Amino acid sequence: MPPKLAKEKKEEINKKNLISSIFKENFFIRPSFDIYGGKAGLVDLGPLMATYQNNILNAWREHFVNRDGVVELESTSITPEIVLINSGHVKKFADVLIQEVENGEIYRADHLLENFINQKIQSEKDKLDADTLVELERIKRDADALKPEEIDAIVEKFKVVSPNGKRLSQARNFNLMFKTSIGPTGLDSAYLRPEIAQGIFMNFQFCYEYLGQQLPFGVAQIGKAYRNEISPGGGLFRMREFSLAEIEFFYDEKQQTHSGVVVVDDVEIILYPKEEQMRSAEERIDSKDLLIKISIKQARSGIVPQIASSTTSETRILLQNEILAFYIGRTQLFLEKIGFRRSNLRFRQHLDKQRAHYARDCWDAEALTTSGWVEIIGIADRACFDLGAHAKGSGKQIGASRKLDQPIERLVLKPEKGKISQVFKKDTSIVANYIESLNQNEEEASSIKAQLNEGKDGVKEATIYPYKTSTGERDLVKSVKITPDMISLKTEKLTEENFYPFVIEPSFGISRILFSSIEQGIYTRPEDDQRAVIPFPPSIAPIKVGIFPLYSKKPFIDLSLQIAGLLQHFPTRIDKSSASIGRRYSRSDEIGIPFCITVDYASLDSDVEIKKEKNDEESGKESVSNQTVTIRERDSMDQIRVHRSVVVDVITRLVKQELLWSDAVKQFPGADKKDQKE
Amino acid sequence: MPPKLAKEKKEEINKKNLISSIFKENFFIRPSFDIYGGKAGLVDLGPLMATYQNNILNAWREHFVNRDGVVELESTSITPEIVLINSGHVKKFADVLIQEVENGEIYRADHLLENFINQKIQSEKDKLDADTLVELERIKRDADALKPEEIDAIVEKFKVVSPNGKRLSQARNFNLMFKTSIGPTGLDSAYLRPEIAQGIFMNFQFCYEYLGQQLPFGVAQIGKAYRNEISPGGGLFRMREFSLAEIEFFYDEKQQTHSGVVVVDDVEIILYPKEEQMRSAEERIDSKDLLIKISIKQARSGIVPQIASSTTSETRILLQNEILAFYIGRTQLFLEKIGFRRSNLRFRQHLDKQRAHYARDCWDAEALTTSGWVEIIGIADRACFDLGAHAKGSGKQIGASRKLDQPIERLVLKPEKGKISQVFKKDTSIVANYIESLNQNEEEASSIKAQLNEGKDGVKEATIYPYKTSTGERDLVKSVKITPDMISLKTEKLTEENFYPFVIEPSFGISRILFSSIEQGIYTRPEDDQRAVIPFPPSIAPIKVGIFPLYSKKPFIDLSLQIAGLLQHFPTRIDKSSASIGRRYSRSDEIGIPFCITVDYASLDSDVEIKKEKNDEESGKESVSNQTVTIRERDSMDQIRVHRSVVVDVITRLVKQELLWSDAVKQFPGADKKDQKE
Repeated sequence: MPPKLAKEKKEEINKKNLISSIFKENFFIRPSFDIYGGKAGLVDLGPLMATYQNNILNAWREHFVNRDGVVELESTSITPEIVLINSGHVKKFADVLIQEVENGEIYRADHLLENFINQKIQSEKDKLDADTLVELERIKRDADALKPEEIDAIVEKFKVVSPNGKRLSQARNFNLMFKTSIGPTGLDSAYLRPEIAQGIFMNFQFCYEYLGQQLPFGVAQIGKAYRNEISPGGGLFRMREFSLAEIEFFYDEKQQTHSGVVVVDDVEIILYPKEEQMRSAEERIDSKDLLIKISIKQARSGIVPQIASSTTSETRILLQNEILAFYIGRTQLFLEKIGFRRSNLRFRQHLDKQRAHYARDCWDAEALTTSGWVEIIGIADRACFDLGAHAKGSGKQIGASRKLDQPIERLVLKPEKGKISQVFKKDTSIVANYIESLNQNEEEASSIKAQLNEGKDGVKEATIYPYKTSTGERDLVKSVKITPDMISLKTEKLTEENFYPFVIEPSFGISRILFSSIEQGIYTRPEDDQRAVIPFPPSIAPIKVGIFPLYSKKPFIDLSLQIAGLLQHFPTRIDKSSASIGRRYSRSDEIGIPFCITVDYASLDSDVEIKKEKNDEESGKESVSNQTVTIRERDSMDQIRVHRSVVVDVITRLVKQELLWSDAVKQFPGADKKDQKE
Repeated sequence: MPPKLAKEKKEEINKKNLISSIFKENFFIRPSFDIYGGKAGLVDLGPLMATYQNNILNAWREHFVNRDGVVELESTSITPEIVLINSGHVKKFADVLIQEVENGEIYRADHLLENFINQKIQSEKDKLDADTLVELERIKRDADALKPEEIDAIVEKFKVVSPNGKRLSQARNFNLMFKTSIGPTGLDSAYLRPEIAQGIFMNFQFCYEYLGQQLPFGVAQIGKAYRNEISPGGGLFRMREFSLAEIEFFYDEKQQTHSGVVVVDDVEIILYPKEEQMRSAEERIDSKDLLIKISIKQARSGIVPQIASSTTSETRILLQNEILAFYIGRTQLFLEKIGFRRSNLRFRQHLDKQRAHYARDCWDAEALTTSGWVEIIGIADRACFDLGAHAKGSGKQIGASRKLDQPIERLVLKPEKGKISQVFKKDTSIVANYIESLNQNEEEASSIKAQLNEGKDGVKEATIYPYKTSTGERDLVKSVKITPDMISLKTEKLTEENFYPFVIEPSFGISRILFSSIEQGIYTRPEDDQRAVIPFPPSIAPIKVGIFPLYSKKPFIDLSLQIAGLLQHFPTRIDKSSASIGRRYSRSDEIGIPFCITVDYASLDSDVEIKKEKNDEESGKESVSNQTVTIRERDSMDQIRVHRSVVVDVITRLVKQELLWSDAVKQFPGADKKDQKE
């Protein structure tokens, strides 16, 4: 390994170890059910991380909900099967697993392939020809999108074995949803939601009414989602239960505009479009030479700045959809606000093969961590996939309407209630509503019209859901036979048309944001690579103020408690330990406390008589009682002295960032350096 | 029915209907998956209710976490079976169900009994003797605590039938937890948590370490819980998925004190102890004559004020535990802060039979709703049930320690690793740890010691969990045989002793609080019983400010948008509809907007030329442009006029309650009554 790379590697390992020991010692996170040996993919947040998460979520609400005029709702995690059948999840929300033939050990197929290929390339590098190398790289890139039969073929071709060297079974799909059932019968299947978007689609119509039947509008939700991962990741990645914050922004596809886009036009972002990713894989160019640094305005208008690996500039519109562009800009601003450095962020477009079954286009915000670039946010263009699927699946009128330039006439199906009632008796209205709903689906309606015109017998077997029993207590799916005489064709004059709104979905992996924001920000003091600092911005730091009585004696403690009492509107921590002030600063740095107050001799009333500690003689001598305390800022380690009567006000303004530290150091005298004890 | 009762009844029904139509029209709540016919027990919160919930939770955090120095954590919903076996939920967390023999229709047995008895009493009132009446009342009171065999006996004795008059099957327990499984094997059973407390118990030890190994301390959590109810309630009661906010306050049973109790000593509460409930049932006294109005201090010290039904006062300590008393006081303060009226609240003690399997004592905060008194908060004394159960179940050292006044000696079990390794090979340390852990349990250890002393063969069959396989990948329960030679007895000198902390658990049913706070507060204007007002306090109102342009013309709209833009830190609603201002006030009243701003002719610049509306002639005449807008307060309906340059500042102070409305009306001129249009 070249020396520079070796040094970087060492720093990365040091960083990983540091974070892991800080997280454990300060109870940031713990494996859930740790006393029972833990459970892979389930992680609990301790006090610091839970508070950090609250602060991030409040910042998210302020940024994306309040400021952007979006509404929020809350739906349930438990989701009936029919919803997820119609959304496509029951069929398609799966990963491929593969087992050892001998003992049934289970692996996620794409991970197994990736590891196998990495090892193969490393150990057989000189023996592999260029074509094989390219093929292996391509398999690695596409691994998570391969179908079971494609994986079987690769296993055969490259003689892939398990990490234990064992023979592998055929690959198969494994649905990632947790299954359960509702009610005492045990027959009503349901799942824990694998994404929180469906709860918003379920309520689209009610939001549309609530907001005065006008598009566009955004609906947000914050909540848990659940994925029964085959092989969960470590820490806060690839968890089986995790927090999401999402917006579904509904719009008329004929007006792909967002009035707020001008506000983000100057935001600088880094894009990694799919074309560049293909080049990276095919031409083996390092991705960092293919990233495009660009403003939102440039990306929308087709001005693509020159990138490192290219000699010519070109005209290419990278962000077609104005709403997508708006949310990429807003996301960049949000991430910078909560402390992400610009160079640690990029937006990567999904390759065609990688997109979820519902998405037309998707850009991931990725953060640079010690494990490389990881997805933290997905901004997907879901078109009208879901609303259409649920309209069809529920038979309900779902969608928005727009005025037509001029009225049109069309043929519609009308239920003949008299005929229907002869067969269906008290269920007539259920069947009649079903027939009405067929008009929603152009294709289906016209096929039925054709059948009617041809006078065929037995129009269709209809599956009606929900089909309530007479007691109205259970939902059932029922198959009924509808005959031609139950339907007539009428001509209808329309002045407006119904349509399914399109949707842009920014989806924030909160657990991943918590972890990666700390990982990309944490640094060590130059003088000691074991002394870590988490640079939380004051607004989202879990603890805002540390308060240190110089010694554990009554006058110091009392004054510290008094200051803490007045700062009750902020989470504070009093460190009464006998550790040196320097040690206490360092303990507060590693949990990211932005400001620390030290109560020392100078802070006390002049008439307080207190025996000075021996090892404190020097500083004791110099500190004349003037009722001041020190305030120390985390990143600069600079200190100021302020009178104790104003410390609460000064700290409050510092935390709220109404007073900048750079101004505070001009306004107040610096502390005696000998007191600093760093 | 006497006329007064009839009137009350009518008002209740009116209230119920009003709330239900306001909730639906304004999308406060909706049945989840409504487009698929809904799903009993699952409810979605629309924008107003979701925002209201956020505000309530923020107020809760501020009150119980930040102010009281409690820490918060977040654990998972998915819970492995072993945890809930040890907590007793797998065995005991059940309701009793009963079915119709003929067609299997399922009922919750206690509800069926209650309804049956109510009907019986009503229809056979004159025929029933006094003893039978008392017996029936007692069955009703205890219905939710009856065992299946007790229910079977009652069914037989009173010839109970289903609501359809059908014969009933034998009653049986139905576990209320939603079941699922973790990972791809399908063998690793798990449940959705039925309460959020277990996640805190799992982390007790890590919190204890994090907080410097000192008691007492409180740990809070906010999250979802899941109960697969047999017959879910309507609205936000008895849901299958619901929000809880809980604190587990851990303390040393030898120090049942709380330093904060003096702060709540003067808080006035209404108590309904178990003795009074027994009297109510036995002597058929109306509960309202048995309620005890008392201060926390009185309840702690045994001074019980005279109650309506009693002629003598007595000395009886109603709240023994100071921590329990503290939390009842804090809860009362919290509920009043979020708008509950004092007369609509009481604390009811659980009867011995009604307590959950883990509780030693429990007080419910109950709110008076149109459905009578309903539980919204439970404050339980769980003693050390859970920590003890998990210590025993996990074999881990769990608990706190306290210094002994003088050292003591005790016999302890020591593993003989040499002997163990002959049998258990690489698993030696698992078995050794298990033997160490037996010392935690006095009873078990001494029985083993006795066996050892008697030299019996085969000390015990031990069930060890977790018992990791060599690959360390799966948790297994394993039964092993430990023989006497694997254990020796040693004398240990102890200077401190370990103990299980006790716990007080205030558990807030957030969904119930949302609903009952609105129900107990909503009122109608005296002049129109269809004109409802929800009196949200400004701090928790979902929308803080309504803004009404008098007419839908540019100058009115522009100024309204400008004010809304400056108020972006608050959720606002601009109502640009053509409805009269009075109608718009009334629409804003029913969603609880505390302040409304109206932009009228007087608000505009004097050089704006605008044709006045015909029906506005009179007010138009009198309103000279002076660039003022009106602010109208919801409950008094009073209005003031303030200059548009200060409206943002005045509204901000009003919402933050830095400026009281009663002061505002003194400070600013009232609006011209003719403009009021109420």
